[in-house]
Amino acid sequence: MKKILIAYRLHPEGLKDLEGKYEIVLPQEKSYFTKEEVTSIIHDFEVFVPNFSFYTDKNIIDKATKLELISNYGVGYNNIDVNYATEKGITVTNIPNSTREPTAEFAFALLLAAGRRIGYYDRKLRTPKGVSWGVYAECGLPVYGKTLGIIGMGRIGQSLARRAVASGMNIIYHNRNRLDTSIEQTYNAHYVSFDELLCTADYISLNAPSTPETYHLIGEKEFNKMKPTAVFINTARGNMVNEKALAKALKNEQIWAAALDVFENEPHILPELLELDNVVLAPHAATKTMEDRIAMSIEMAQNIVGFYEGTFAISRVN
Amino acid sequence: MKKILIAYRLHPEGLKDLEGKYEIVLPQEKSYFTKEEVTSIIHDFEVFVPNFSFYTDKNIIDKATKLELISNYGVGYNNIDVNYATEKGITVTNIPNSTREPTAEFAFALLLAAGRRIGYYDRKLRTPKGVSWGVYAECGLPVYGKTLGIIGMGRIGQSLARRAVASGMNIIYHNRNRLDTSIEQTYNAHYVSFDELLCTADYISLNAPSTPETYHLIGEKEFNKMKPTAVFINTARGNMVNEKALAKALKNEQIWAAALDVFENEPHILPELLELDNVVLAPHAATKTMEDRIAMSIEMAQNIVGFYEGTFAISRVN
Repeated sequence: MKKILIAYRLHPEGLKDLEGKYEIVLPQEKSYFTKEEVTSIIHDFEVFVPNFSFYTDKNIIDKATKLELISNYGVGYNNIDVNYATEKGITVTNIPNSTREPTAEFAFALLLAAGRRIGYYDRKLRTPKGVSWGVYAECGLPVYGKTLGIIGMGRIGQSLARRAVASGMNIIYHNRNRLDTSIEQTYNAHYVSFDELLCTADYISLNAPSTPETYHLIGEKEFNKMKPTAVFINTARGNMVNEKALAKALKNEQIWAAALDVFENEPHILPELLELDNVVLAPHAATKTMEDRIAMSIEMAQNIVGFYEGTFAISRVN
Repeated sequence: MKKILIAYRLHPEGLKDLEGKYEIVLPQEKSYFTKEEVTSIIHDFEVFVPNFSFYTDKNIIDKATKLELISNYGVGYNNIDVNYATEKGITVTNIPNSTREPTAEFAFALLLAAGRRIGYYDRKLRTPKGVSWGVYAECGLPVYGKTLGIIGMGRIGQSLARRAVASGMNIIYHNRNRLDTSIEQTYNAHYVSFDELLCTADYISLNAPSTPETYHLIGEKEFNKMKPTAVFINTARGNMVNEKALAKALKNEQIWAAALDVFENEPHILPELLELDNVVLAPHAATKTMEDRIAMSIEMAQNIVGFYEGTFAISRVN
């Protein structure tokens, strides 16, 4: 019986496909295993479901002498040294289906919250000073009729575009590869250069994967190109944005607002950001509903079953 | 030259259609006229653009001996004694076009913020205690795949439905009159009784007009019928909801969350609501962007020009 090490205490509801056929070890008394704990026991396992709070690096992989499969509990896999896993003949899978709609939903929720100042109003109304109810006081920015620039027009980007189009937005996008005309037509989406997107979009959403090439993709130079009324949304990965440059752009009102679900050093958030009124902050919660988290477990478990038994299609990363 | 009394200091950008053809009086040094100020000078005006912070009642209308038109700066007109205006031969107009998309947009922003806990996360992350970043901690509720019950399926309700459908929601609605099949099909919307809507919807949005019949439409009895996971959104008018019953339902977790843009005694908000974590609060901001507020002025001004010159279609209330 293959042995699976799961670094999170995942709900049994999402692991039913593995029951009776695999031996599962997961944390019993706390919510996740530390890097040290994983490192000390991984030699015994064929399958590993890694954590997002530490990097599954060469050191861990070297210890994992029996490892055949890393089944990631996430769509992004910047928490794994995939190249080294490949070198060692270890398959890596991820979960693009169950994460697609919740993440696009959360990105759009953040977009609306930042533009229409939902977070700001909700916070300020609870303070003694409150908010002005005057006709023009403390206005937000419209979303309807505005242009959304999507950086990374994969599944999540397209699901976001679907919502945005129905909300009256125009879509421009930048991607490693231009999409098929039929997909572009679905969203009436226009392919533009990275620079043109930065210069012309009213709302800019980051939906690309985190790779060495996209590290600090958005920094001071990029914020300088954005409109003073631009709203920047990040539900991808924190390390794709220079967080200090972002805080500066927000503080100096070089851009109008931001909404962030991800940060460079999670769960740490740059203290400057916590002080700013023109940012909406969330704790990496794009897929944070019980239903979605269980659906993610099911997809993750089915990648394992599919890998060994061929009964489910699996999403390979390498 | 007809004289227009505008109770708000509206931006000149939105009043261009009136320039040179009408004499306009509006507040110069503050943002609006009080009821007393309006009452003391209204006898001199043919047109009145009323305020939302006081009721344009019999007393004001009786003083307005020259009045021919009340051109409301809003789509709801519960700030005007329309029946008495009708009796006196005074036309009342409102602005359904410029308010439609911004209000639906804001309702959907609130819906997403309440379900996915955007307001909660943003507030809590800024406190010393913060928020847990754990897999299942402080989860929100999904929107995708859930049922939205719309009470009042007019223009705003339909614009909300368009957004919700693209976001993966199923639509049920209740309305004074059932809509044409073609409209129902556009949103795959199902007409249900008021009771069925309350009992079965995951998200409930109030988008009906405030009338004597809809006063306290939603109270203790109605909250009791809702699911414990229900999310209630009000962007219509505060007096349609028993605010004390709502605060109680939220406090006792009879319903899961609410998002409110309107209140029974604006700008006063029930102190209990300000203490609750499962509510998102906004200061009657559904149309609160400069662009939208100016578009509303233009529509309001064109109602006046249309009334006197026939050059614009006007939206009559009586």
